[in-house]
Amino acid sequence: MDAIFLVDICGTFAFAVSGVLAAVERKFDLFGVIILAFVTSLGGGTLRDILIGSTPVSWMNSDVHIYLILLTIPLAYFFMNTLVKLKKTFLLFDTIGIGLFTVLGLDKAIEVGLSPVVAIMMGVVTAVFGGVIRDVLSNQVPLIFRKEIYAFACLSGAIVYSSLNYFGLFIEFNLMISITVVISIRLLAIKNKWSIPFKPLAKRN
Amino acid sequence: MDAIFLVDICGTFAFAVSGVLAAVERKFDLFGVIILAFVTSLGGGTLRDILIGSTPVSWMNSDVHIYLILLTIPLAYFFMNTLVKLKKTFLLFDTIGIGLFTVLGLDKAIEVGLSPVVAIMMGVVTAVFGGVIRDVLSNQVPLIFRKEIYAFACLSGAIVYSSLNYFGLFIEFNLMISITVVISIRLLAIKNKWSIPFKPLAKRN
Amino acid sequence: MDAIFLVDICGTFAFAVSGVLAAVERKFDLFGVIILAFVTSLGGGTLRDILIGSTPVSWMNSDVHIYLILLTIPLAYFFMNTLVKLKKTFLLFDTIGIGLFTVLGLDKAIEVGLSPVVAIMMGVVTAVFGGVIRDVLSNQVPLIFRKEIYAFACLSGAIVYSSLNYFGLFIEFNLMISITVVISIRLLAIKNKWSIPFKPLAKRN
Repeated sequence: MDAIFLVDICGTFAFAVSGVLAAVERKFDLFGVIILAFVTSLGGGTLRDILIGSTPVSWMNSDVHIYLILLTIPLAYFFMNTLVKLKKTFLLFDTIGIGLFTVLGLDKAIEVGLSPVVAIMMGVVTAVFGGVIRDVLSNQVPLIFRKEIYAFACLSGAIVYSSLNYFGLFIEFNLMISITVVISIRLLAIKNKWSIPFKPLAKRN
Repeated sequence: MDAIFLVDICGTFAFAVSGVLAAVERKFDLFGVIILAFVTSLGGGTLRDILIGSTPVSWMNSDVHIYLILLTIPLAYFFMNTLVKLKKTFLLFDTIGIGLFTVLGLDKAIEVGLSPVVAIMMGVVTAVFGGVIRDVLSNQVPLIFRKEIYAFACLSGAIVYSSLNYFGLFIEFNLMISITVVISIRLLAIKNKWSIPFKPLAKRN
Repeated sequence: MDAIFLVDICGTFAFAVSGVLAAVERKFDLFGVIILAFVTSLGGGTLRDILIGSTPVSWMNSDVHIYLILLTIPLAYFFMNTLVKLKKTFLLFDTIGIGLFTVLGLDKAIEVGLSPVVAIMMGVVTAVFGGVIRDVLSNQVPLIFRKEIYAFACLSGAIVYSSLNYFGLFIEFNLMISITVVISIRLLAIKNKWSIPFKPLAKRN
């Protein structure tokens, strides 16, 4: 439980930072920055909770997430220069976020008694849809449709997590391994410019 | 019950094909194709279930829909050449999908005890919003806002279905008639380029 | 209760008008106009109800909202010339809508037992997301991200409402004050072209 809460807090922070960076890049005003920080960090978990019928949505049961995000915004603003200089910062925070949220979503779906296949989907949804909603609200084609092995990384981590879970591994250990899998695949994919194109037969002619 | 299940499976298949075709046209990578297939075929029913509070969303209670869609993707890929040659294929599958899903959504809403007017709306939502979400995620103005008598076809079918239902017709018979109404109107509209423009008075000057 | 219902009806009407105006401006066909009227007026409350788990979503429990919106559409169409001549009409109806819906959403969230901070967020969500969904469906960056102190007005009204509520003021009185606060701030912001830019430090260099 405590390990899960820690993962939740870190993931929320990482995605809030990535939301602020995205909003600034798109020249939104203050309120746009706030909404994008909230949507990016809470969107995926919110969609998961709505789909599995766990309402009021989990972050609404306490004010912790709200205050965390409200604190992250000026923090990200203050260290903006540093963040922007480290070119890959946005991708890094985004990657950490998806790693943490994949296992979080999966864990919650298993808890509710959904099948492993559905649980793996919920892990991916939790990790990925905060960013998808962020991109849709910014009127952009979601990153996930165009770049890197983004979701493939989540999927791999989710499969690893549910396999290890099946064998009854300690949750803390399982969390660490699965999160590491997601983050490693994503970072390797970015570094080596991996991609899975989908060239339909029709285009060959 | 069995007839409803059959309608569900066929509609899911038809929309999954239309999702794959849309994704390929937009040059998404493999994961984008998968997401668009899922979103197009499950999106409308998901929104309906969320609105009426039937959660976990119905397709999450078994793995049937997930496997069906995962099988449809390579199938649509393999027959891509054939599908693309038949120019109207995308529209055909899309039309079959909306025909089937209109009555499906309506039936479910009536079952939950909602008023006929609300039930008709839920039929249209089920049929139409998979495509709307598909278009929003692809960063396009939803087809439904710009083309043909798309939703008018759904609406007509929904009204026919709930009228026949009121008179206590056999469900299998009712399903067949209503689905035929939707598909016929849509295909006639495409063939004859029907449209309902909405020229506001203000523009005349 | 009655005062709340009145606020609901007026807000729904105001947002439906703003939805029709937006659809006409974007040259949508009849069905697009209908969807945009529905989405703009029901979208915010729908999202709030889904988030707090109050389903079937409130407007689905009677046909009042549906008939109201269906009546508003030809009305807005008929008076289109007048509406368009009064340049600021769209903004006015939109502003009245957000004023009314802010307090409505907040009131409902408090009723369900959510914390004041979450309730204020739900007030803003109710007021703002109908317009956000309208803009996303029209493939535009939501107004809220780019213009004026839109959401700041909602936020102020929400804070005033929950403060007055805390001191046990008559609800009718409280409603009037809070709605006035939202509308005044928004109108003053439009008139004086207030905005809260968010210039990140990084951009200065």
